[in-house]
Amino acid sequence: MKILILGGDGYLGWPTSLYFSNQNHDVLIIDNFIKRKLQKKFQRYSLFKNYTLKQKINEWKKVSKKNIEYKEIDATNYKSVLNIFKKFKPDAVIHFAEQPSAPLSMLDYNNANFTLQNNLVSTLNICYAIKETKLDTHIIKLGTMGEYGTPNIDIEEGYLKIKHKKRSDIFLYPRKGSSLYHTTKIQDTDLLYFYSRTWGLRVTDLMQGPVYGFDTNEINGNEKIYTSFSYDDIFGTVLNRFIVQAVAGETLTVYGNGSQKRGYLNITDSIKCIDIATKFPASKGELNIFNQYTETFSIIQLAKKVIEAGKKIGINAKFKNIKNPRVEKENHYYKPSNKKFIKLGLKPNFLTQKILCEMIIKVEKHKKSIKNKNFLPTVNWNE
Amino acid sequence: MKILILGGDGYLGWPTSLYFSNQNHDVLIIDNFIKRKLQKKFQRYSLFKNYTLKQKINEWKKVSKKNIEYKEIDATNYKSVLNIFKKFKPDAVIHFAEQPSAPLSMLDYNNANFTLQNNLVSTLNICYAIKETKLDTHIIKLGTMGEYGTPNIDIEEGYLKIKHKKRSDIFLYPRKGSSLYHTTKIQDTDLLYFYSRTWGLRVTDLMQGPVYGFDTNEINGNEKIYTSFSYDDIFGTVLNRFIVQAVAGETLTVYGNGSQKRGYLNITDSIKCIDIATKFPASKGELNIFNQYTETFSIIQLAKKVIEAGKKIGINAKFKNIKNPRVEKENHYYKPSNKKFIKLGLKPNFLTQKILCEMIIKVEKHKKSIKNKNFLPTVNWNE
Repeated sequence: MKILILGGDGYLGWPTSLYFSNQNHDVLIIDNFIKRKLQKKFQRYSLFKNYTLKQKINEWKKVSKKNIEYKEIDATNYKSVLNIFKKFKPDAVIHFAEQPSAPLSMLDYNNANFTLQNNLVSTLNICYAIKETKLDTHIIKLGTMGEYGTPNIDIEEGYLKIKHKKRSDIFLYPRKGSSLYHTTKIQDTDLLYFYSRTWGLRVTDLMQGPVYGFDTNEINGNEKIYTSFSYDDIFGTVLNRFIVQAVAGETLTVYGNGSQKRGYLNITDSIKCIDIATKFPASKGELNIFNQYTETFSIIQLAKKVIEAGKKIGINAKFKNIKNPRVEKENHYYKPSNKKFIKLGLKPNFLTQKILCEMIIKVEKHKKSIKNKNFLPTVNWNE
Repeated sequence: MKILILGGDGYLGWPTSLYFSNQNHDVLIIDNFIKRKLQKKFQRYSLFKNYTLKQKINEWKKVSKKNIEYKEIDATNYKSVLNIFKKFKPDAVIHFAEQPSAPLSMLDYNNANFTLQNNLVSTLNICYAIKETKLDTHIIKLGTMGEYGTPNIDIEEGYLKIKHKKRSDIFLYPRKGSSLYHTTKIQDTDLLYFYSRTWGLRVTDLMQGPVYGFDTNEINGNEKIYTSFSYDDIFGTVLNRFIVQAVAGETLTVYGNGSQKRGYLNITDSIKCIDIATKFPASKGELNIFNQYTETFSIIQLAKKVIEAGKKIGINAKFKNIKNPRVEKENHYYKPSNKKFIKLGLKPNFLTQKILCEMIIKVEKHKKSIKNKNFLPTVNWNE
C-alpha cells in the first residue's frame, strides 16, 4: 500500500512510519517540524537525542534496506497537500499532523489560535484533497479518548443508540473536552462526520488514550532511530513523566487527588491498532470510530505502579498530590469499551512491572539529560 | 446596557442594532462588510437598496434622535476585538459575525476554509477577549437549528438526559450538520461549551431556524434603513426566495420532494428572542441554549402558502420540484421544542396570509430589481 503519514516526525508518527516501512509498504512522510520548533521555543526537549528526520531515515535504510520518503510540508497549506495527493496517490493517509499538547492549547491566545487553525485546517485539507483528486484514500485520523470526557455512563465506541420519549436514533456519542486541544479533536470529528457522509469518504477516527513507552520492534533499542520522548509538563504524557521523575530522584507529582481515570496503551499497541485500522478500512461514506486503549488506570494507580517498579531496581520514589492545573473532574465514573480492536485481533501489551522496569532502566542511561525544572506544571487552565 | 453587535451590518445584525438602540441601549456595531463584498463578488445583491452602514446610521439618527456607533473591524482580528472590549466594556456581545451561507460553505476549498476560519476564530476571539479583560460580558451567539439535523427523536433545547445501561447523564444534544456552515456552528457550540465551563463565561447559544421578512418596528417601512434582503440561491433563505420568485412570475423551485421540515420565524420574533436573551443572561459558567423558531413547515407547505397568498393579490404562481442540490434527508421526523422562549414571554408572529400578502406587496414595488437568474441553485453539495 501507499501510505501517507502526516506528522511522521513525531512521537507516534515516526514509529508508525517505521512499522509500515518494515511491512514493505510505500511510506511517504510529510512534516513541517513544528514540534521540534516548539520544543526549542519552550526549551523542553526529548530525553533521548532526537536525530533529524533525514538522519533517522538514513539510519533506517542502513539497518533495514528499506526506504522512507519525506517532504517538509505544512499540512495546513492546501496547495502542497493537494499536490502530494495528486503525485503520491495514497491508499491510506494517517493524520498525526496536529498540535498534540493540551497545556500548549491553554497557554495563551496565540497558542489557542494556532491549535484551532492547525488542527482543523489540516483535517479540512485532507478531506478536500481526496474530493478533488477523486482518490479512494482511507483517512485514518488520530482522535483522543479525551473527546468523550468523563461521562457518568459507559463510553461506547463512537456512537450511541439513544431512546427518548419512545423513539430512538443512533448518534455520535456526545462529547465534552477538557482542554482546547481536546475540543479541536471533537471539532475534527464533527468535520469528518460531515464530509464522510456528504462526500462518501472512508474515515477511521481513533479515540486514543495517553500512550506510554518509546521502544518498538522496529526501533529495537537503536538510539539513532529513537522517537521523540517528552516527559515535561507541556509535551509529556503522565506515565512517561512519572518514569523520568522517578529516575531523576524527584517526587512524582499527581495533579489533584489523582482519582482521574483514563484509558492507556503501550506505544507498540498504538501502532498495532493503526495497522489493524489500515487492514479494515471504513466503508465509503462511513466514519468508523474505535476506542484505542488497552486498560484504564487512575493517576494514583500509575504513580504506585512506577514506585513499585522503581523499588525493584533500587529507586526509592514517592508521590505527592499537587494543585490540579487543569479544570477536570477528579472523582468520576469511567467505563469505556474497547471491544472493536480486540475483536479484530489486538493482543494488548499490558502495563506489567517488567515493562515498567525496562523503561526505567533505559531512561536511567540518559539520567544526565533530564531537566528537572520541566516537571512541574506551568500552564493553568483558568488562572 | 452597553451592547456590542458583531456583524451589525447584516440581514439580522442591522435590525437587531436598531431595536436595541431604540430601547436606549448603548449600541456599538463592528463589521468588516464581508457580506457586501461577497454579494458583489457573486453578483447577488439585496433586493432593496442596501445603503451603506454610515448612511443608515445617519438616517436612523434623523428619525430617532438616537446614535449608533460603528467601527470597521474584522472579528477574526484578535487585537482589534480585544481593543474594542477594553474600550467599550460591553455588558453583552451579540455575535452575528459569521459566514452565514450554507451553499457558500460548500462551493469550493477557499470558501470552505474561509467559513471554517472566520466562524471559529471570531468565536474564539470573543471568549479570549472576555477572559483577558476580566469583563462579565454575556455572550449571545447565533447558532442554528441546523446543528441538530433531523434526528428521529424529539429535539430538546440544547441538552438531553441520556439513560444507558441503567446509568444516566446530561449531555449536549448530539449534533449532525448538513453543510460545512452548519458544522462550523456545531464547532462554535463545542468551543463555547468548553470555555463557558472552564472560564466561567456566560453564554447563550441560540439555535435559530430560517428567518423570513424584512420589516421591523424600527425600520417601519423606511427604505433608507432597510436591511439587506437576499432571495438568491447563495444568500437567500427559502421563504424569502419563494416570495420573490412569485412576484417575478417564476415557478417556485422546491429542492427535492419538499418534505424537509424546519422551524421558521419572523424577523421581528428573531429580534424579540435576542431581546429576551439579553434580559435573562446565562449564569457564570453556563452555556444556555434556546431553540429559536416559532413554527415548523415543510418546504412544500411554504410553497403552497406563498401561492395561496399570491392568488389573493392577483399573482398566479406555481411550484415545481427540482433535483435537490443538497445532501439531506427529505422524509424525516421533526419535532423540536421551543418552550423556553415562550415561557419567557415570546408571543410569536405566526406566518399568516396577511403577513405573506404584505411581504409580497412590498416586494412587488421592487419587481424591476429582481434578477431571475439568481433563483436557481448553482452549488451542489457533492457534484
